[in-house]
Amino acid sequence: MPLASDLEAFFAKNQSRARDELFDLLRIPSVSARSEHNPDTARAADWVAESMRRIGLTATVHPTKGHPVVVGEWRKAKPGAQTVLIYGHYDVQPAEPLELWDSPPFEPTVRDGKIYARGSVDDKGQLYLHIKALEAHLTARGTLPVNVIVLAEGEEEVGSEHLAAFIEDHKDLLECGAVVISDSAMFAPGLPSILSSLRGLAYFQIDVQGPTTDLHSGSYGGAVMNPAMALARILATMHDADGHVAIEGFYDKVRDWGEDARKQIRTLPFDDAHFRAETGSPELFGEKGYSTLERIWMRPTCEVNGLLSGYTGEGAKTVLPAKAMAKVSCRLIPNQTPDEIEHLMKKHVERVAPKGVTVTVTHLHGGHPWRADLDGPLFDAARRALATAFAREPVVTGEGGSIPVVGDFQRILGAPVLLVGFGLPGENAHAPNEWMSEENYFKGMRAMAALWDELAAG
Amino acid sequence: MPLASDLEAFFAKNQSRARDELFDLLRIPSVSARSEHNPDTARAADWVAESMRRIGLTATVHPTKGHPVVVGEWRKAKPGAQTVLIYGHYDVQPAEPLELWDSPPFEPTVRDGKIYARGSVDDKGQLYLHIKALEAHLTARGTLPVNVIVLAEGEEEVGSEHLAAFIEDHKDLLECGAVVISDSAMFAPGLPSILSSLRGLAYFQIDVQGPTTDLHSGSYGGAVMNPAMALARILATMHDADGHVAIEGFYDKVRDWGEDARKQIRTLPFDDAHFRAETGSPELFGEKGYSTLERIWMRPTCEVNGLLSGYTGEGAKTVLPAKAMAKVSCRLIPNQTPDEIEHLMKKHVERVAPKGVTVTVTHLHGGHPWRADLDGPLFDAARRALATAFAREPVVTGEGGSIPVVGDFQRILGAPVLLVGFGLPGENAHAPNEWMSEENYFKGMRAMAALWDELAAG
Repeated sequence: MPLASDLEAFFAKNQSRARDELFDLLRIPSVSARSEHNPDTARAADWVAESMRRIGLTATVHPTKGHPVVVGEWRKAKPGAQTVLIYGHYDVQPAEPLELWDSPPFEPTVRDGKIYARGSVDDKGQLYLHIKALEAHLTARGTLPVNVIVLAEGEEEVGSEHLAAFIEDHKDLLECGAVVISDSAMFAPGLPSILSSLRGLAYFQIDVQGPTTDLHSGSYGGAVMNPAMALARILATMHDADGHVAIEGFYDKVRDWGEDARKQIRTLPFDDAHFRAETGSPELFGEKGYSTLERIWMRPTCEVNGLLSGYTGEGAKTVLPAKAMAKVSCRLIPNQTPDEIEHLMKKHVERVAPKGVTVTVTHLHGGHPWRADLDGPLFDAARRALATAFAREPVVTGEGGSIPVVGDFQRILGAPVLLVGFGLPGENAHAPNEWMSEENYFKGMRAMAALWDELAAG
Repeated sequence: MPLASDLEAFFAKNQSRARDELFDLLRIPSVSARSEHNPDTARAADWVAESMRRIGLTATVHPTKGHPVVVGEWRKAKPGAQTVLIYGHYDVQPAEPLELWDSPPFEPTVRDGKIYARGSVDDKGQLYLHIKALEAHLTARGTLPVNVIVLAEGEEEVGSEHLAAFIEDHKDLLECGAVVISDSAMFAPGLPSILSSLRGLAYFQIDVQGPTTDLHSGSYGGAVMNPAMALARILATMHDADGHVAIEGFYDKVRDWGEDARKQIRTLPFDDAHFRAETGSPELFGEKGYSTLERIWMRPTCEVNGLLSGYTGEGAKTVLPAKAMAKVSCRLIPNQTPDEIEHLMKKHVERVAPKGVTVTVTHLHGGHPWRADLDGPLFDAARRALATAFAREPVVTGEGGSIPVVGDFQRILGAPVLLVGFGLPGENAHAPNEWMSEENYFKGMRAMAALWDELAAG
């Protein structure tokens, strides 16, 4: 079904303004990680609030201990209408290294249909297309088929440190029946995508202490356990030869995705050779019995994120290190929990740790895995809306990484979360030359405008 | 047998002067590793040359591409007398961290019979006691029973980079029948020691390359081989559970020391509990079937000296590292050679390296192991001379570390090398509060004066 003609007419007429306005937002270097940019971050918050007021929402800039949270509201829908919450973020990653950008990161430039700028796709473009979708309804029709809350935070790129508490503290204000987030990518150009799963995380530091201080490897080598060697022996026990995680009980809570989900994954346009070339690894490797996408989306992992011990400079230094450290993290799949994996990891390391050293496992950081229940009216409406805007049935995708805020919304507000993103592979979200497809920016606002109609239609 | 009475009388009379002169040398901060100390290092070389001229030697300061080599000579012994070469070094380790010194490193201070100063035992005190032993002969008797060459270098603490070439280039000048080096420690206070063995070294860097750049451990984790995990798996294959090195062929060339040498080691006053406490390790660990001293002196090892990969800062960063690096070194025992071990190490790593990564082994640095043949007249003379000065039969000890210059002397000059040191356990040779026993300084010069008589007596 095509987009309602009044909305289509509005978008067609206002296209260049919608782009110019986004460019204004992109020019504000709202780098949340750098305190010298705090005035810019505050300016971006005010800009977003003002852009909502301009189209008829009320908007409040809420200070937090970090960067402010902007909340826009429009609650004049017909009695009985749903309330939806749109989440996005107005902060961006640092732009460094600047010399690798082909055009200035905070001067948006269109080349080959791509809007190049820091924050273009992550997440200013994807946040602002929602505001433009609301504007289409409110301008073309003077109303919206749903009540709307827009929550734009300024700390997503620094871990959303204050967001969960903000949601908790404003549970009544943010009460809703659905959460919509556009901060992800489509699986391929032209292929609209609903992101249905995120992996969780249990991140550990393993510290191995041998002698009190570094020793001379000649005068002492051979007579005490070398902590770096002990650490290597511990890490080598974490997988079997087939790439299965060998921590006892690790897979006990993993919920099987079923043959349907695996079949659906196999229909996606994915090429192992292309993926391998993208990583630069000499060949792909992973758990036996699973395809690459299955390994990333539906299987848990155990990875070393860092190693440090002894002498690491140039040349040779004959030190027997006093200690060795590894950062080790597991990506989790429902129904694994960080607490359970912490317990299993500690038990495993205790079992395999060599004698002659003291080993400590610290759980640094955890996040729950998430998987959408795709059988609700929210997802049906999203499928129809995406098909309307992109003239193609959307696919369901997964994601190997974690977005902790998704779990927070679902847990605190009790509403289903729809992850529908308009980025594209290769968009350089955290790298130099970040870009967003101009076409997706315009189609995304159409899709989201259609979504509110579809959701109201039920 | 007591020391010859004329020599004893000389030493007794000149004791405080011998200490004061050493203190002058210790006051020169001849730190070879720091170019800002180059004038001090040059001054120390001149000082040593002048101290030799004063007692009747000729002395030349030879410039090198690094710090100078001082060569003193006295060649007026009776026809047919032996020529001996005494080696020592006038450079010292850096004194940092200065705040850990109880008295200034370059202001020698005696407390509890210990001369505290940087370089006191390593090696200025041990070099200068030789010069004082020569002085005793030349002053008390006007002659020496052997021809003498004294070679004092200024780069021992930075790897003796130019020494082997200097010896090669001056083979005729340095031609001798015996080399004597005092740059080591006695096994225990009051227990004179002859050091009979040094381990060699083959030092490697293992580099594991996975993806081209660091990847997001969520978006890619599980689908490519993690290079840090691959490195851990490689390192874990280097030993079996009993602490034997598991590299194929590793022990093939190791010469058995025989039951006599092992018996002799077992007679030494050594306490595992004390050694463990000194290292601070929770318990001792090493190759099954060998005692601690045997593990350090007569068995080869394979140790990790350093590890580096990915994120090593505070907290959690979810990176899948592009590469991982280990420094790995083997201590060698005759007749192992660095070249042979390089070959075996490379073959082993190639065999065990997991798929999905590229592994490179680089041989950074090597040194041959050394073991003295203790059955010659040089060692018999040394045993008698040490017994004279210390009133106790010397013991034969080993050393787990390497002194490459020993092999160089033996190889280039073809002369046996006697390692007889007067340091003591706990002397902090490369640490703050370095000290030399005042008693050993005075007994050491008596022992070395006795040595020349014993050697001439045959």
